[in-house]
Amino acid sequence: MPQTMSVERDPHLLARESLCRVVRDLGAQGWCQGTAGNFSVVLSREPVRLLMSPSGIDKRHIVPGDFLVIEAGGEASLEGTGKPSAETKIHLRLVSQARAAAVLHVHSVPNTLLGEHFMSQGGFRLRGYEMLKGLEGIGTHEAEVFVPVLRNRQEMGPLADEVGRLLDERPGLHGFLLAGHGLYTWGDSLEQAQRHVEIFEFLFECAARRTRFEPFP
Amino acid sequence: MPQTMSVERDPHLLARESLCRVVRDLGAQGWCQGTAGNFSVVLSREPVRLLMSPSGIDKRHIVPGDFLVIEAGGEASLEGTGKPSAETKIHLRLVSQARAAAVLHVHSVPNTLLGEHFMSQGGFRLRGYEMLKGLEGIGTHEAEVFVPVLRNRQEMGPLADEVGRLLDERPGLHGFLLAGHGLYTWGDSLEQAQRHVEIFEFLFECAARRTRFEPFP
Amino acid sequence: MPQTMSVERDPHLLARESLCRVVRDLGAQGWCQGTAGNFSVVLSREPVRLLMSPSGIDKRHIVPGDFLVIEAGGEASLEGTGKPSAETKIHLRLVSQARAAAVLHVHSVPNTLLGEHFMSQGGFRLRGYEMLKGLEGIGTHEAEVFVPVLRNRQEMGPLADEVGRLLDERPGLHGFLLAGHGLYTWGDSLEQAQRHVEIFEFLFECAARRTRFEPFP
Amino acid sequence: MPQTMSVERDPHLLARESLCRVVRDLGAQGWCQGTAGNFSVVLSREPVRLLMSPSGIDKRHIVPGDFLVIEAGGEASLEGTGKPSAETKIHLRLVSQARAAAVLHVHSVPNTLLGEHFMSQGGFRLRGYEMLKGLEGIGTHEAEVFVPVLRNRQEMGPLADEVGRLLDERPGLHGFLLAGHGLYTWGDSLEQAQRHVEIFEFLFECAARRTRFEPFP
Repeated sequence: MPQTMSVERDPHLLARESLCRVVRDLGAQGWCQGTAGNFSVVLSREPVRLLMSPSGIDKRHIVPGDFLVIEAGGEASLEGTGKPSAETKIHLRLVSQARAAAVLHVHSVPNTLLGEHFMSQGGFRLRGYEMLKGLEGIGTHEAEVFVPVLRNRQEMGPLADEVGRLLDERPGLHGFLLAGHGLYTWGDSLEQAQRHVEIFEFLFECAARRTRFEPFP
Repeated sequence: MPQTMSVERDPHLLARESLCRVVRDLGAQGWCQGTAGNFSVVLSREPVRLLMSPSGIDKRHIVPGDFLVIEAGGEASLEGTGKPSAETKIHLRLVSQARAAAVLHVHSVPNTLLGEHFMSQGGFRLRGYEMLKGLEGIGTHEAEVFVPVLRNRQEMGPLADEVGRLLDERPGLHGFLLAGHGLYTWGDSLEQAQRHVEIFEFLFECAARRTRFEPFP
Repeated sequence: MPQTMSVERDPHLLARESLCRVVRDLGAQGWCQGTAGNFSVVLSREPVRLLMSPSGIDKRHIVPGDFLVIEAGGEASLEGTGKPSAETKIHLRLVSQARAAAVLHVHSVPNTLLGEHFMSQGGFRLRGYEMLKGLEGIGTHEAEVFVPVLRNRQEMGPLADEVGRLLDERPGLHGFLLAGHGLYTWGDSLEQAQRHVEIFEFLFECAARRTRFEPFP
Repeated sequence: MPQTMSVERDPHLLARESLCRVVRDLGAQGWCQGTAGNFSVVLSREPVRLLMSPSGIDKRHIVPGDFLVIEAGGEASLEGTGKPSAETKIHLRLVSQARAAAVLHVHSVPNTLLGEHFMSQGGFRLRGYEMLKGLEGIGTHEAEVFVPVLRNRQEMGPLADEVGRLLDERPGLHGFLLAGHGLYTWGDSLEQAQRHVEIFEFLFECAARRTRFEPFP
């Protein structure tokens, strides 16, 4: 007999439902095409436990039960039968070092193109846009927000270390791009992290429409 | 025991529901990303009372109970627990000086880019488009509609004064842009104001696709 | 007591429901912004009677009861309280002269820009696209489809006459543009006319992305 | 009396429902405008039987009962009253020669434009994008994926033969374009094929935004 989910049976039910709602919303905006993207919220800090989206799931149709519970190390899940994303290491680094309560990683056409285009310069500056105020702690459109771009790589350990160095150099960072890959952003709450995705993607589309990209191919 | 909302208990219930429907619709079109945008309708003119969207709420999921009742001055809300938007002063100015019954402020990529691009020229002219007839009082595509662009600023008092001067200079104005920020438009009814948003945004996309923007960054 | 609509009470109920479904679908694709667009199906030919969308209604939320019944002449409606669109004359001309069973008129950014751009040349040719086969009677992507562009004007009588001359010159025409205004297309059935809108708009976006438009403003 | 569909009455019910869900989803993303696109899953291999979308149906509103059961040869359907698509031959070839379990064919503006643009060069290479990893068997963004472009033609027999030669030359191919026409992609499962559509279309939009297309017309 199938049993109703309840907080009594699953203490993480509310977190599962909140993250599910956010991930579906991001998927509906076209930022998780082809099962792309991965997403987490912090369940506890001592020890560090994350609720995290599994690899290879269509994010528009994800359900609360699909999320995994992951511990530092990140190789295996404590709860859930899906496969943890290879990028779990980056989430764990952002949670520990940037004190993120939620980490969201999305793929969009503008973030892919801007990352590819500006990697050789290490990133790009956004300035003069009111939307910048949607990034936590930014109080004026005249603020200058630097978006670092890291070279994409498949080795997650070294990439997580590089993210760690970036966070050391730039305290207060709101997000970064992996070249030709996508955006990582985070927040003090899931709601704030979601707002950061929307703000960055809005500004990326503004920037992309003004950028003279290298001709393809 | 939760109580059903009713007009008996809340004389503004119908206004709340109408504004809620419009704001959700604008949000669904991507014009309120990252909790951006603010929206009001006039409840009374003597004294001036506005029903207004609170700051920092996801506009796609706003509910009728989220809106605030604001009085001239605009620092505090008579009803509602949310935070009034800093831009309340601009709404109040448009209501008193342009006799607006509803004021809608949205952020879009084209309105952001066009405002940034044309600020140094003070604005731009739209002409030759049938859609111009969707602006109240315009009877032909041959009409010339000027869209003023004001410099964006964070001091709402001086900005509201600047809006006041603009309205003095240009009676019959349908809307204006803040550079790198967004569109303000209004109407004799909420329905008309919503139509003005859609008309302007359609024409802004036409204009943006023809504009040679400054290369980013 | 509100009464259920039924075919007994309204012999046009099925036509109303079909047209309503199509108009909402076109509205949902962004082709009726700001209450733009008008739409009709033929109810009878002797005498000519059209079921037609009223002016000034948000097409995404139109309901079956909103449509008007119009007779040749088109100044007044036999049924319905809304205002007939000024463009009724063009619908009537297409119904009588092109033997259309349904006429659909939509506004999109690409159709507005292409009409504006190619008016001085009288139109443009589409060729080499498989999607052309979605236009009734076209059997190969190698067919050449000419899309005439007429100068936009507010006098509907003379404009309808110009449409009449165009239909004389080009039997088998599938649609035309009014410059800076929008697309008129039609079909032997409502379903076919809807398909024509989608085919033309797809091809217009292809063409628009390849067109070097005059710089704005 | 209408009867409920059930697996007892229709052994293909689950396949019909799965394919229906995928086709509606592809339609909702704008990839089947004007009734375009065709889609199949393998029901059996000895003999080869496909469940296939019929020609001329609006894919956003397709229902499980609309799909046809087709056998090698493909001229007639064993079940279903709709008309088999002319492109059935290509599906059968991909099923037999590429061992596809599902074949999806979609039309998008970027895939139409890229096919048209790169036909004379026989195709184009995608490289450096993380999203490439969504193609089965690709493990790094540094992989180079070639997207062949075949000349579009209306004779399905010779076109299917050409597809056959292409598959011989390029084992492990994930998809190809027909110039000015659209994408064919497939997979070991329906889910994988759907992922391939989304991955390719994402990358096509990236490529299209960087491509200097020939000016229209």
